Amino acid sequence: MVHREPGELLDATVAAIRPPDEGAMAAAESMQARLTKPAGSLGALENLSVRLAGLAGTCPPPLPEPAAVAVFAGDHGVLAQRVSPWPQEVTAQMVANILGGGAVVNAFARQAGVSVTVIDVGVATALDLPPGGVLGGLPDDGVIAGFTPTASSPFVAAKVRAGTRDMTVEPAMTRAEAIAAVEVGIRVAEQLVEAGARALLTGDMGIANTTPAAALIAGLTGAEVAAVTGRGTGIDDETYAHKIGVITTALGLAGDGLDTIGLLAAVGGLEHAALAGFILGGAAHRVPVILDGVIAVSAALVAAALAPASAGAMVAGHRSAEPGATVGLRHLGLEPLVDLGMRLGEGTGAVLALPIVASAVRVLHEVATFDSAGVSEK
Amino acid sequence: MVHREPGELLDATVAAIRPPDEGAMAAAESMQARLTKPAGSLGALENLSVRLAGLAGTCPPPLPEPAAVAVFAGDHGVLAQRVSPWPQEVTAQMVANILGGGAVVNAFARQAGVSVTVIDVGVATALDLPPGGVLGGLPDDGVIAGFTPTASSPFVAAKVRAGTRDMTVEPAMTRAEAIAAVEVGIRVAEQLVEAGARALLTGDMGIANTTPAAALIAGLTGAEVAAVTGRGTGIDDETYAHKIGVITTALGLAGDGLDTIGLLAAVGGLEHAALAGFILGGAAHRVPVILDGVIAVSAALVAAALAPASAGAMVAGHRSAEPGATVGLRHLGLEPLVDLGMRLGEGTGAVLALPIVASAVRVLHEVATFDSAGVSEK
Repeated sequence: MVHREPGELLDATVAAIRPPDEGAMAAAESMQARLTKPAGSLGALENLSVRLAGLAGTCPPPLPEPAAVAVFAGDHGVLAQRVSPWPQEVTAQMVANILGGGAVVNAFARQAGVSVTVIDVGVATALDLPPGGVLGGLPDDGVIAGFTPTASSPFVAAKVRAGTRDMTVEPAMTRAEAIAAVEVGIRVAEQLVEAGARALLTGDMGIANTTPAAALIAGLTGAEVAAVTGRGTGIDDETYAHKIGVITTALGLAGDGLDTIGLLAAVGGLEHAALAGFILGGAAHRVPVILDGVIAVSAALVAAALAPASAGAMVAGHRSAEPGATVGLRHLGLEPLVDLGMRLGEGTGAVLALPIVASAVRVLHEVATFDSAGVSEK
Repeated sequence: MVHREPGELLDATVAAIRPPDEGAMAAAESMQARLTKPAGSLGALENLSVRLAGLAGTCPPPLPEPAAVAVFAGDHGVLAQRVSPWPQEVTAQMVANILGGGAVVNAFARQAGVSVTVIDVGVATALDLPPGGVLGGLPDDGVIAGFTPTASSPFVAAKVRAGTRDMTVEPAMTRAEAIAAVEVGIRVAEQLVEAGARALLTGDMGIANTTPAAALIAGLTGAEVAAVTGRGTGIDDETYAHKIGVITTALGLAGDGLDTIGLLAAVGGLEHAALAGFILGGAAHRVPVILDGVIAVSAALVAAALAPASAGAMVAGHRSAEPGATVGLRHLGLEPLVDLGMRLGEGTGAVLALPIVASAVRVLHEVATFDSAGVSEK
């Protein structure tokens, strides 16, 4: 067992993240021009393939399969401020539903051939785990048995604390807790990659978790709170106005001048922190990380603030209906692949985008050139 | 062998197309409200699942797999007007490339597990067919050996004529040729469904085929020619202005007051006609037809003009960069699933959308209800 100091894994991970390989990107651009199709006719997929070549440092980059979606679950003290109409126990109930294969992310994952791993990084209420498939805690080393991209819904017990504190009253987490949650995410990324995953997909489950997401996006982009706050799972006008006030209060309490970890601790969530680590872990291993919705985008902003080059590993899976997602993606310079008005979370938008990402990469592996196919050019 | 009069199959197919089943649609709407997700959180996928239930007449509707993309190939006399910089022989060369598995549609199809069938409905130059996989003509009855959703790239020789005539000089086809091409498409749809396909995807290959597509879209929607004409595979400003003039000339020669088949014959293409039949065939068999880009949209307008209820079978796979596609989709009341600036054709946009369609349907089959999963409601 490796004994690490808190923060040591985070520092090492940030240090390992490299900028995109320009040679591989140039090779991918040149290859796109020789394939049997009009130049530019694959639109955004051409640029995506070039970015993934830069990430992998080779052209063609590896196919992003097998892929694994990691659903980080946590609860939020700010729910006490009534920012959501759903009771807190729904987080634990939905964790059980996902482990039982009954959630939308499971249906999408079966369609796409993606494994679903659930990580309890901060659920507040008791988890009623189904028999089997429960794999216990996250070891410092090695791959947990069954923790593979093909096993169905392994569960990882990695609770940092039973929900955050109410960020309108005090910081949601201590710095140590925030760092511990980030490092859970890094280790999950590492272990999934070690188990064979060639794409990491972000997932989340946590009642009220759009509130800390909006707070992080406002704090990290400088956007107005109202411009990044949405209706989450569906709230009325009164609750929506109240939610904006709650986020404004929390950001006021946090104050200016915090560093990234300080802001994350003040107004973030345990699953947001873990997702930031998950993204950093993917970037350090040069594996693409397909972002889901607004929770993922807030975590991506944290990751990019800690390690700007980590943006090279990010693929925006979809445009969530939550306005903060669009603000955050613009800040990151990312264009989403799917835009269907979805706002479910769980990783659903990321899983839906995977076949598109795989198709973009497959072009560089399999399509004939004008020369090889004997096709005339214009 | 069944001896049919020309037009008999078209008439019977149009007569077989039924409006959506409202009971199945209501059942799907009600089911969406009970599943473990916030109401409406799957955005456009919820409505898509309801439409497909209406098409199938049952809830949940069948999963749209296995799926088959049919690539109808044809040439265009209007190429003599220099509307494209590509030589005509590229149509035949790309047919060979697709049959050899080297085109983008093949790469996408392998990713999605979709079979690719190529139909020569009107190629002008000699086809250099690879050994094996060539299945000969389209019999009146029965399923051609190997003509299955899992076989790779079967080829169907169903040439109606070797390219259309120049529509700026005379009608591109006679009415009989247009009807014959439509009926090729119907028979391909029927045989793919009989072979097990549960979704039909439109594909096309034909140098200059965005020109007749734009003419059909202008003729069937009443939009200005300039508003529906794009740059196809990539043409310069001068050729673009010339292309608009060519289409305007052809529509002027065709005149007003033509019926749908008359317009199709005057300014359409053999693959456009076959695709219209393919869509009608899918609709008659209550199987979803996923539309690719602007060629498919022009054919869908023809199908909807012949049988308005056929729109219930149409799923807009993507938004082509060609402006006519957006005009046509709006006219049909369809919202595309993928919008990535693609303009390749071949069926690539339809294949890319298939996993999204399948995911939407899978939700109705597999996701737990609040009751069954023991999840609290808000």
